[in-house]
Amino acid sequence: MGRILRINLTQGETTEEPLEESVARKYIGGRGLGAYILFNELKPGVDPLGPENKLVVATGVITGIPCPGNSGLNVMAKSPLTGIWGEATAKGYFGPELKATGYDALIVEGQAETPVYLWIHDGETQIKEASHLWETPTRKAQEIIKTELKDERAQVGCIGVAGENLVKYANIMFGFNHFAGRTGMGAVMGSKKLKAIAVRGTRRTSYAHEEKLVGLLMDKLNSKEALNGPYWPDGLFKYGSLADLGYWQETGRLPTMNFRKCLFPGYDNLTAETLASSPYLMRNNTCPHCTVGCNRIAKAHDPYTLDPEYTTPEYESTAAISSLCMNDNLAATLKAIELCNKYGIDTMSTGVTIAFAMECYEKGLLTEENTDGLDLTWGNQDAMLQLIERIARRQGIGDLLAEGSRKAAEKIGDQAEEFAMHVKGMEFPLHDVRGMKGHGLGIATSNRGACHLQVETDDMFEGQLDADIGIDQTAFPKEYRDRLYTGQEKVKIVKIIGDLFAAFDSLVICKWTTYPCGGYKTRTIADVVATATGWDFTVSELMKTGERVFNLCRAFNVREGVTRKDDKLPQRFAEPLPEGPYKGEAFAQDEFEKMLDHFYRLRGWSKRTGIPTRDKLESLELRYVADNLEALGTAS
Amino acid sequence: MGRILRINLTQGETTEEPLEESVARKYIGGRGLGAYILFNELKPGVDPLGPENKLVVATGVITGIPCPGNSGLNVMAKSPLTGIWGEATAKGYFGPELKATGYDALIVEGQAETPVYLWIHDGETQIKEASHLWETPTRKAQEIIKTELKDERAQVGCIGVAGENLVKYANIMFGFNHFAGRTGMGAVMGSKKLKAIAVRGTRRTSYAHEEKLVGLLMDKLNSKEALNGPYWPDGLFKYGSLADLGYWQETGRLPTMNFRKCLFPGYDNLTAETLASSPYLMRNNTCPHCTVGCNRIAKAHDPYTLDPEYTTPEYESTAAISSLCMNDNLAATLKAIELCNKYGIDTMSTGVTIAFAMECYEKGLLTEENTDGLDLTWGNQDAMLQLIERIARRQGIGDLLAEGSRKAAEKIGDQAEEFAMHVKGMEFPLHDVRGMKGHGLGIATSNRGACHLQVETDDMFEGQLDADIGIDQTAFPKEYRDRLYTGQEKVKIVKIIGDLFAAFDSLVICKWTTYPCGGYKTRTIADVVATATGWDFTVSELMKTGERVFNLCRAFNVREGVTRKDDKLPQRFAEPLPEGPYKGEAFAQDEFEKMLDHFYRLRGWSKRTGIPTRDKLESLELRYVADNLEALGTAS
Repeated sequence: MGRILRINLTQGETTEEPLEESVARKYIGGRGLGAYILFNELKPGVDPLGPENKLVVATGVITGIPCPGNSGLNVMAKSPLTGIWGEATAKGYFGPELKATGYDALIVEGQAETPVYLWIHDGETQIKEASHLWETPTRKAQEIIKTELKDERAQVGCIGVAGENLVKYANIMFGFNHFAGRTGMGAVMGSKKLKAIAVRGTRRTSYAHEEKLVGLLMDKLNSKEALNGPYWPDGLFKYGSLADLGYWQETGRLPTMNFRKCLFPGYDNLTAETLASSPYLMRNNTCPHCTVGCNRIAKAHDPYTLDPEYTTPEYESTAAISSLCMNDNLAATLKAIELCNKYGIDTMSTGVTIAFAMECYEKGLLTEENTDGLDLTWGNQDAMLQLIERIARRQGIGDLLAEGSRKAAEKIGDQAEEFAMHVKGMEFPLHDVRGMKGHGLGIATSNRGACHLQVETDDMFEGQLDADIGIDQTAFPKEYRDRLYTGQEKVKIVKIIGDLFAAFDSLVICKWTTYPCGGYKTRTIADVVATATGWDFTVSELMKTGERVFNLCRAFNVREGVTRKDDKLPQRFAEPLPEGPYKGEAFAQDEFEKMLDHFYRLRGWSKRTGIPTRDKLESLELRYVADNLEALGTAS
Repeated sequence: MGRILRINLTQGETTEEPLEESVARKYIGGRGLGAYILFNELKPGVDPLGPENKLVVATGVITGIPCPGNSGLNVMAKSPLTGIWGEATAKGYFGPELKATGYDALIVEGQAETPVYLWIHDGETQIKEASHLWETPTRKAQEIIKTELKDERAQVGCIGVAGENLVKYANIMFGFNHFAGRTGMGAVMGSKKLKAIAVRGTRRTSYAHEEKLVGLLMDKLNSKEALNGPYWPDGLFKYGSLADLGYWQETGRLPTMNFRKCLFPGYDNLTAETLASSPYLMRNNTCPHCTVGCNRIAKAHDPYTLDPEYTTPEYESTAAISSLCMNDNLAATLKAIELCNKYGIDTMSTGVTIAFAMECYEKGLLTEENTDGLDLTWGNQDAMLQLIERIARRQGIGDLLAEGSRKAAEKIGDQAEEFAMHVKGMEFPLHDVRGMKGHGLGIATSNRGACHLQVETDDMFEGQLDADIGIDQTAFPKEYRDRLYTGQEKVKIVKIIGDLFAAFDSLVICKWTTYPCGGYKTRTIADVVATATGWDFTVSELMKTGERVFNLCRAFNVREGVTRKDDKLPQRFAEPLPEGPYKGEAFAQDEFEKMLDHFYRLRGWSKRTGIPTRDKLESLELRYVADNLEALGTAS
C-alpha cells in the first residue's frame, strides 16, 4: 500500500521496498512502524553510534490529510543516550513533504566516510556531498541546502555541531523551529556522517473513501473539534506552551534547583505574560493547517543578539534553563535556548545536565579544576552559556556533560548519581511528580526513559476524557481526579493513556489537538484512519494497536536488558517537597511499588521481571516477539 | 439551492426565502448577491439611516470549504458616509458560522424601537432585547451576548458607541478583531437599533462533487498554493500587514501630513520591526485554516493601558493614525487604534478625518474655539486620543468630524474641501497614488469611493500574475510595470483587476491568499466553484461575473447621481510630490482624464457620463438594470 526507502550510507545505495498493507494496518506508521523495523533489524547490543544502528524516519498512515495536528514524523533508532529504544517526534512541514515524495518511511543504515546529505525528490534520491556543511549551524545549513537544490520548498531536517560531535542528546532540527529533540537522534545522524535529509514531493496520496473524507474534513477535522481544548483560550493560543510556567508554579510543581524545590522565586521574570510584554517576543509560529501557533519566536539585539531563526521559548526548554538552574534572567534564558537550537542539542537534557553539574559543584564533587575555571554556582547565567558552547563542541567539562547526566554521574562517582535526574538514562522533564503520582508512574515506565509525552495523566481531568477509550470522566469518583491518588483506577488510566499515546505517536498526530487537551475525539481519529485506508478501523482497534506498539517497544528494551529494576524514579522524589500546595508530599517507595505491581498486572507483564508474557504478546499478535525473546533467553 | 433570512425589525418578523440557483450562479454570493438584492429592493434616494435602507450580510457560494482565505462575509447597504454603494468585508470566524446556520445571507430591514440583537441558531431566529448592551464596547458586548446565550462558540458581529451614535464611518466588529470597517455599515446597524448579530450553526453544506473536493483541498487549497505569495516570507507571515509601512516609506509613498509629504521622519518608531521588538507585541491572530496570522495583537500597561482585545496595529490603521497626522509615538498610535476598535469606528476614516482637522487648524479654518479648546497641532497625540473619544460620542468638535471629512469640509467652508482627502465621500487609503498611477485610477473609479481593495495594480507586477485572466506578466514590456506608466495597457490591467476583485469579493475570499500576493491561481478558484456547485464554471465565467457585479454596483451609484464628474482624485494629487524616489511627480489632470477615457471605453461606459451603456449591461445579462436606469432617466 505504501513504500519505504532504504538508504545504505556505507555502500552509497538506495533501494525501495513495499510497505505491505498488513504491516501498515498492524502498526499504523510512525512509532509503530519504526518499532517493527528496528525490533526485526537491529541485533540486541549494537553500538548506537556504530554502523549497525539504523535510523528510521516514519510518517503515519494518515499523514498528509490537511487538518490541524496531522503533520508529524517520528525519528527512531537505538538511543546513544539511553542504550534502549530511542525516538523523537517533530511536527511542522517535513512530515507531509516526505509523504508527498511517495515514501511513508526512510531507513538509513551504515555509515558514510565523509559528510553527506540526502535529497529525496518525488521518488528520486541522491546522496550528496556535505563536507562544506559540517560545523554549519542547523538553520543556516538548511538554507544553504535549499539554495543548492534550487528549491525553496524543500523541507530539510538537519543536525548541528552537537550531532556532529556525537553529543549524546543531540537533536535534529526540521524546518523552522521544529525539533526531534530527545534521546540523541542527532548523534545517530552524526555517527553516520549524515548532516541532513532534504525532501520535496508533489505526489498526492489517494485515499479509500475520498468523498467521505471531505465530510470529515469539513465536519470534524477542520472544524472547531480540532481546536477546542480547555487549555487553549488562555494558554496555547494566547501565550504558547510557556503559559504552563505559571501553571506549574501556581500548583507547586515547577522544578527548581534541580528538583530540590518546586516554587521559583524568580518566575515572574519568565512567564509567558512577561515574555509577551517584553521586547523579545516577535510572533507565533504554526504547523500546517493549524491556526493555534503554540510556538513563539523571540528576537533581540540587546543584551544578547537573539536570532529569531533559533529562539523559541517553549515551556520545557525555558524551565530547564531557568528555574531548574536558579537562573531568573529571561534574556539569558532565551540566549541559551538559541544556542541549543543553533548547535542542535536538546534543551531539556541540556538544562537538566547543567543543573546536575551545578549541584555537583555546590557539593564539591566538581570544582573549578574540573570545570576549566567556570564558576557553576546556581544561577550563573554566563557560565551556563559557556557550558552550552562547550557541551556542543565537547570541550573540557563539556565533553563530560555531553555524555548526559547518568554517564557523567558514573564518571564523577561518589554521591553524584543522587543528583542525576533521569530515568533509564534520559533526563527528566520539567514536571515535579511528587504532585502528580500517575504521571510519575508513567514517566518511570515510559519506553524512552523519563518522558512526559508517552503518558500524561494527572492534569487531564478537566480535559475532554473519552468514554470510548475506557475512561469515562463523568463516572469518576472525585478522588480519582486527585493528583495524589495512587489507587488502581489511577494506574488503569496510566495504562490506557500509554496505549492511546502509542497510537497517536504511530499516526504521529499532535497531542494538543487530541486528548488530553480536548480537540479531536478518539472516535474521529479512528474514523479518519478507516476513511483514508478503507479498513474497518475502530477505536477498539486503535487502542489495541497502541497496546501492541507499547509492548513492542518494551520488548525492544527487554532485549537491551531493561527489567523491573529500571522502572523507577530518581531517588530525590522520595524526599518530601519543601514548599507549596504539595508541601511534605513525597513519592514513597512502597507506594510506587504498589502502583507498579498493579501496572504490570494490567499490562500482562511478569510482576517479577516486568517482561511481557507470551500470552500478552500473542494476544497482541506479537508471537514473533515472544519467540524472539525466548530464543534470546530474555522472556518473562 | 440556498436560503436567505429576511428580518424586519419594524415588525419584529423573520421570513425565509430560497436563494434560487440561477441567482446564486449569476452573482456567486457576497458583493454580487448584495448588489442584486439592494439594486432591486432599495429605491434611489432613500435615507441611509432611515428604515427604508436595508443591511445585507452575505457569504459566498464556496464559504465554508475549509481552506485558507475562505472565511469572509460581506456587509452591504446604502452608505451613510457616501450616500452611494456601501460595503465592507470582514474575515475571521463569523462567515463560516453564518453559513453553518443554513443561511447564505441575511437581509435586515426596518428599524426597531428599542435596541435589539439577533440570535440565529441552526435556522431558528430570535430578536432579543439589547437595551442593557447599549453603550457597551464592541468586544465586551460580544462576550456578554455569548454568556447570555450560553454558547461560547457563537460568533457575534456588533457595533460600539460610534455605531449607536450614527458616526458616519462607524464599523462592525466580528469576533476577535475582524472588522467590516468602511463606509459606515456600523451606523446603518445603529440606525436600526441593531446592536449585534449572533450566529451559531452545525449544518454542513453538501457539495456537488465531494470526492473531487477532497482532491482540491489536498492538492491546491490546503497545500502551499494558498500560502505562497512573494510578500509573505518577510512580510505578512513574519510581521503582519504593518510590514507595509517600511515598504511605503522606502518607495516614497507613505502618506504623511495629510498627503503633503510622502516620507515620514518618525517612521522608524512605527515599523513592524520596531513593534516586534517593543514591549507591546503579544502575538499573531489568524483566520480559520490559515496559518499566516497577518493580524497582530498588542498589549501594555504603560504609558497607556492597551487591551489586547482591541489593539490590532494593521498597516492602514497605523499609518492613518501616525504618519498622516505627524504622530511618531507608537504607544499613542496603539492606544488610538484600541479606542477606535472599542468604540467601533473605522481607523482609516478616523485618521484621515483627524489629519484633515489638523490641516484646517494649521490654516486657521478651525481654532480652539471650534475645537473645544483642543490644540490640533500636527502630531499632538493627546489631542488625537481625545478627538477619537469625542467623535465616537459626537461631543463638540467630534460631532462635526463624525460626519466624515467631505461633510465636515462643506460645513467649515472656505478652502477646507482642499484638505479633505476623499473620493465620493470616503476617506483615502494610506497610499500616495502619485507614485502609482494605475492604483490612482482604480481608487477614483472604485464603487465605494476611495478604496484600495477593489482595484490594486501597480505593486503587483512581482506577484503571481495570471495569463488566464488576460494579464500575462511574462509578455509584458518592462514599461508596463513602471508604477508611473499610464498607457492603455495599465488601464486595461485596472479594468481586469477590478472585475477579478469584484468576483473575489463576491466569493468573499481573502486577496492575500490569491492574486496579487500569489497564492491560489485564479483557475483553482474557478475549479473550486465548479466542484462545490456542480456548475461548469470557468475562469472566463468568473471574470464575466466579476464584470457583472462591478457594473451592477456602478448602476446602483448611477441611480444615486454618480457620473463622470465623481470619478476623480482629490486636488492635492495634482501637486508634485516634494521628496523621495518620486519627487516632482504629480497626477496631472489631463493624464488622469486620458486614462479615464480609455477606462470607460474598455468598460463600455459612456465617455461623457461614465454610465454603463445598454449594450454593455445586456451583454452582462443585466437587461433589467438597463431598463431600470432608463425608466428612471439615468441611462447613459
